[in-house]
Amino acid sequence: MYFASDNWAGAHPAISAALTEHGSGFHAAYGTGPLDREAERRLAEIFEHEVSVWFLPTGTAANSLALAAVNRIGGVAFAHADAHVREDEGGAPEFLTGGVRVRPVPGSSGKIDASRLREEIEPFSPGTVNMGRAMAVSITQATEIGTVYGLEDITAISGVCRDHGLPLHMDGARFANALVSLDCSPAEMTWKSGVDILSFGGTKNGCWCAEALLFFDPEMARDMPWLRKRSGQLFSKSRFVAAQFLAYLENGLWLELARHANAMAARLAATIENSNRARLAWPPQANEVFAILPVGEYDRLLAAGVHFHDWPEPAGENTGLAEGETLVRMVTSFETKETDIARFSELLDA
Amino acid sequence: MYFASDNWAGAHPAISAALTEHGSGFHAAYGTGPLDREAERRLAEIFEHEVSVWFLPTGTAANSLALAAVNRIGGVAFAHADAHVREDEGGAPEFLTGGVRVRPVPGSSGKIDASRLREEIEPFSPGTVNMGRAMAVSITQATEIGTVYGLEDITAISGVCRDHGLPLHMDGARFANALVSLDCSPAEMTWKSGVDILSFGGTKNGCWCAEALLFFDPEMARDMPWLRKRSGQLFSKSRFVAAQFLAYLENGLWLELARHANAMAARLAATIENSNRARLAWPPQANEVFAILPVGEYDRLLAAGVHFHDWPEPAGENTGLAEGETLVRMVTSFETKETDIARFSELLDA
Amino acid sequence: MYFASDNWAGAHPAISAALTEHGSGFHAAYGTGPLDREAERRLAEIFEHEVSVWFLPTGTAANSLALAAVNRIGGVAFAHADAHVREDEGGAPEFLTGGVRVRPVPGSSGKIDASRLREEIEPFSPGTVNMGRAMAVSITQATEIGTVYGLEDITAISGVCRDHGLPLHMDGARFANALVSLDCSPAEMTWKSGVDILSFGGTKNGCWCAEALLFFDPEMARDMPWLRKRSGQLFSKSRFVAAQFLAYLENGLWLELARHANAMAARLAATIENSNRARLAWPPQANEVFAILPVGEYDRLLAAGVHFHDWPEPAGENTGLAEGETLVRMVTSFETKETDIARFSELLDA
Amino acid sequence: MYFASDNWAGAHPAISAALTEHGSGFHAAYGTGPLDREAERRLAEIFEHEVSVWFLPTGTAANSLALAAVNRIGGVAFAHADAHVREDEGGAPEFLTGGVRVRPVPGSSGKIDASRLREEIEPFSPGTVNMGRAMAVSITQATEIGTVYGLEDITAISGVCRDHGLPLHMDGARFANALVSLDCSPAEMTWKSGVDILSFGGTKNGCWCAEALLFFDPEMARDMPWLRKRSGQLFSKSRFVAAQFLAYLENGLWLELARHANAMAARLAATIENSNRARLAWPPQANEVFAILPVGEYDRLLAAGVHFHDWPEPAGENTGLAEGETLVRMVTSFETKETDIARFSELLDA
Repeated sequence: MYFASDNWAGAHPAISAALTEHGSGFHAAYGTGPLDREAERRLAEIFEHEVSVWFLPTGTAANSLALAAVNRIGGVAFAHADAHVREDEGGAPEFLTGGVRVRPVPGSSGKIDASRLREEIEPFSPGTVNMGRAMAVSITQATEIGTVYGLEDITAISGVCRDHGLPLHMDGARFANALVSLDCSPAEMTWKSGVDILSFGGTKNGCWCAEALLFFDPEMARDMPWLRKRSGQLFSKSRFVAAQFLAYLENGLWLELARHANAMAARLAATIENSNRARLAWPPQANEVFAILPVGEYDRLLAAGVHFHDWPEPAGENTGLAEGETLVRMVTSFETKETDIARFSELLDA
Repeated sequence: MYFASDNWAGAHPAISAALTEHGSGFHAAYGTGPLDREAERRLAEIFEHEVSVWFLPTGTAANSLALAAVNRIGGVAFAHADAHVREDEGGAPEFLTGGVRVRPVPGSSGKIDASRLREEIEPFSPGTVNMGRAMAVSITQATEIGTVYGLEDITAISGVCRDHGLPLHMDGARFANALVSLDCSPAEMTWKSGVDILSFGGTKNGCWCAEALLFFDPEMARDMPWLRKRSGQLFSKSRFVAAQFLAYLENGLWLELARHANAMAARLAATIENSNRARLAWPPQANEVFAILPVGEYDRLLAAGVHFHDWPEPAGENTGLAEGETLVRMVTSFETKETDIARFSELLDA
Repeated sequence: MYFASDNWAGAHPAISAALTEHGSGFHAAYGTGPLDREAERRLAEIFEHEVSVWFLPTGTAANSLALAAVNRIGGVAFAHADAHVREDEGGAPEFLTGGVRVRPVPGSSGKIDASRLREEIEPFSPGTVNMGRAMAVSITQATEIGTVYGLEDITAISGVCRDHGLPLHMDGARFANALVSLDCSPAEMTWKSGVDILSFGGTKNGCWCAEALLFFDPEMARDMPWLRKRSGQLFSKSRFVAAQFLAYLENGLWLELARHANAMAARLAATIENSNRARLAWPPQANEVFAILPVGEYDRLLAAGVHFHDWPEPAGENTGLAEGETLVRMVTSFETKETDIARFSELLDA
Repeated sequence: MYFASDNWAGAHPAISAALTEHGSGFHAAYGTGPLDREAERRLAEIFEHEVSVWFLPTGTAANSLALAAVNRIGGVAFAHADAHVREDEGGAPEFLTGGVRVRPVPGSSGKIDASRLREEIEPFSPGTVNMGRAMAVSITQATEIGTVYGLEDITAISGVCRDHGLPLHMDGARFANALVSLDCSPAEMTWKSGVDILSFGGTKNGCWCAEALLFFDPEMARDMPWLRKRSGQLFSKSRFVAAQFLAYLENGLWLELARHANAMAARLAATIENSNRARLAWPPQANEVFAILPVGEYDRLLAAGVHFHDWPEPAGENTGLAEGETLVRMVTSFETKETDIARFSELLDA
């Protein structure tokens, strides 16, 4: 039972099929071919807005170049204390931007609190040479702890951004999972709520390698050709990303896969909730379930071949974690089967 | 007729098939899964040597991180005046290493002259703080102008490197094309001739996206985990690269594809040589043909739908290019068909 | 009454006199002349230890290059939440190291708590590519809030460092003020307590521009020549720094100036303590006094020409700051006169 | 006899006296005090133009931040093949700009040839992501080989810059020496000839440490506060630079010192020209003399205590250097005495 991460899954057959289909014939390279154009048009349709689209190899690259694109010398970004861009990118945001610092903003449920954000930004806007100057805010949707910003949450945050003239970036490594959770449109969850830049991730939701950085204002992307090349992230046969995105977005495959993953997470959560051997740390809203396991249970599940990751207690949460208990993260994906959940359930209650 | 670049081709069906085959099931991510291990073992076999293998998205990343891995503060690298790493990486080597300068070394036929290399290195070894200090030499195999370093060429260069304690990097974006041209073993063309680090490219020769940085001395790669992550180039589902390389290396597919591309280039060169409408700039040794076209011919071919790139006259060559003539580069690949050459031949002689 | 900062003072006459004295005659440049050597020898004597000495223009440069010298790719440093190197260097540590992140460690009285440090380091030692890896700890002596690490504090912290193989850096922008406060030897406050690298500041204590980075293990400084040049910080006429340091260290001038500044701070603190118009935020241990002023008093003092800086409430302190009160920092220096304090006292009690 | 470099001299007594004079009293720090303002006003007067002035510790910093201030991602600068900014800054321009490459432009007499500059820029304007894009041109005045760009030379170069929308930077480490050589006004040698940014060096001409970066269009300097801080180059007691510049510019001291140095160089050149033991490599125009010495003479002079530097033959010159001869550089300064030249003359003819 593999709940370690959604990137432990491979790729959906439709994604691989698209790679086979588009493998023959010659096309211009480096993002200039017809398939690239078609994928860009498709994204514009789906987002109901002009978009400037940049294919990239990883979410780390997307998040880092989002900040780089809008950075100013001495720039300071703001993100939730537990945000991936702060804690898990191995210093890539700092390196690829030439030294941006990403300051933590508190907030419960893994989400930035808009009023705390305002307080944190103020000393940096306009800022001083010693402290630096605010240049962007980044939110993660779904969050690191499997919760989801509501549209009103995003709007409140983008309101703070607008008051300080700062762009709002959304790290959408699990964009589709959040979207189907909110049951809203891509436009509503992004530019209509004030998001300016989106890391649009396909990899975790059934692609092999399909990440794109989207700018709703193309002017913000004016340095992207050079930023992408300078960091070694310009694919030559970029149509291999385009082909994946086209299949991903075709007939709502992406939404279907996300709905499945979320449903599996809900079922997994229910299993845990109904067990007296474990408990939920907080309710899941997308495809990540956080559970608290007593040490005996933890060992027993591991030994039985359940894959999950230990997780540090998040900054803004009080899970009532007791001595001898472990917080673990379990992630579902398009590959998770009902039978996996059933087997886990049997195991848990055995 | 597409002779613009070998990255205008898609991917060989066997490569796409491998992606389909390995798409299901869960595997550890970020380069730690069994398929990654298998691809690494396969590379070790093929190179008859322990290798430290790092999958990367692009050749630019591979070349830049090769230099970064062995860089020292104030470091200066040496490459041929026309080398890709100097002229065509958009500043990525400079940026990803934190400021390395890549100094030009002259040499005819697109190849570094070993004795000139020695002269160029001397002031930088040990160097001064003002000038900087030598830290690596990089050669391109096959070269930017479609020629190939012989084993004795590589050995002469690695001898200079050894005298100054410098690692030798080979940019093998077209490694397979050079290898079958020399008809030697991968080991002979690399570590047996003194190469320490290899950018091993599969993308141009039939893969979708398969680049690896190989170190024959794992100690040189000790910072690679962090270098790769820090620059946003650690794939999560890295098995999609492993799967491509496994198919690529299976039953000599890679050599077969390179032999085909080279044979097509030889045929294309013969066509040009036998024509009185164009002439070869120099004889091709791999899968790139450089031709000189009078302006009328150039226009006629373009209008007829032949894709090629204009090329600046290389630093070390005297092609006798006259007023009204253009130097063009034509590249063949696994996708190039004999019928393409035949059509081109007819067109040229029409 | 100037209590804004100790860098609002000029230079002690002995410092300027040294510049006049050493202005004539030719000496080798770029840190290679006899005066440089003499200053280095003098520092070695004073610290009773071999030292590798690097003159630098600013404390920002010293702190940043200290981290750069011992950095590893993916490196993470640890400092107090309020440390200058984290909060006030304008991103220089991040930029000059190529992306180091400086993580906050809590602790009261402006000082890192050694047991909290141990907890914070553990996940980063050895660390992961996502999180990064620990590479150094930095403490500020005297601290940002005018307190002083005792020798046992430093020893406890260096013990944690040693357990994780990390170098310990001391930001000694106000080294002399801390030293005379502890009344110990330079050796005791540094290498004897486990400090490996020292930013030795002279500027705030009576020099014009005299900062040096000192390594007690020269091997740690092996990249310094290149790091210093690469960041544009190698003075040509470096003897102008050497001359300042020689005068500074002559006959204990530096200690005398620091004792004076500290004494002025103590007197200023007493004035505040005895007043019923203001109160001390916490007791000063060096040359910085933090006071809490009711709004009316604050305005009155400003209007009367008292220069001080507003200060944010430090991370680890609870000052009982009430609505309508302001926390301010007042700094004394070699230039502060008893009459300044007397005038301030009169003003406060007027 | 010290002809090694003009930075082997100390500081003129007037410079040191200014430091003594301005040492007492409190002033705002970090470039915000009244003395800073006064020095800026004085520079504006002397240049007859609004100037945005940035004090910096070194010429390396000034040149590097000049490029950083106007850089664009993927940026490529152009300078003479022998320019300091290309050959002698230890990679600082590349590092401090985040990867700018400085491409060589040929030209005789150490000066960029304007028509060759145009050819070199064209492929980079607008450029490609692979090659990068032109972002600035830098000239050195006086040049690395002691020659001086005439006003018409500068105007021709700035014309090329204007045609491509590129700023023109002048590295004026020896600005005063060039100025008195041309006998024109500072305005004529800079903005009136199309120079946009000037590294204005005082250190080599009698200051201790006085370098400033001047922008004639303040808009170009908009990122300078952050660039300067981020690279650790913001002096706290910046008035010590202001004080030096005020004394330097007072009553034409700077011109007097430069005239003296140039006169000494002319006398030194005459000595060599009249000798049959050595010959001039080319005629000096400022304070640097390049001579060709036969090996015996070279050894004899060294042994007699004459300090000079060996020099590589410049890219654009043909000095007729024969086997057994050495090219050396001899530099005069404000400290060079007529008696030094006389002693050298006797020695040479002995």
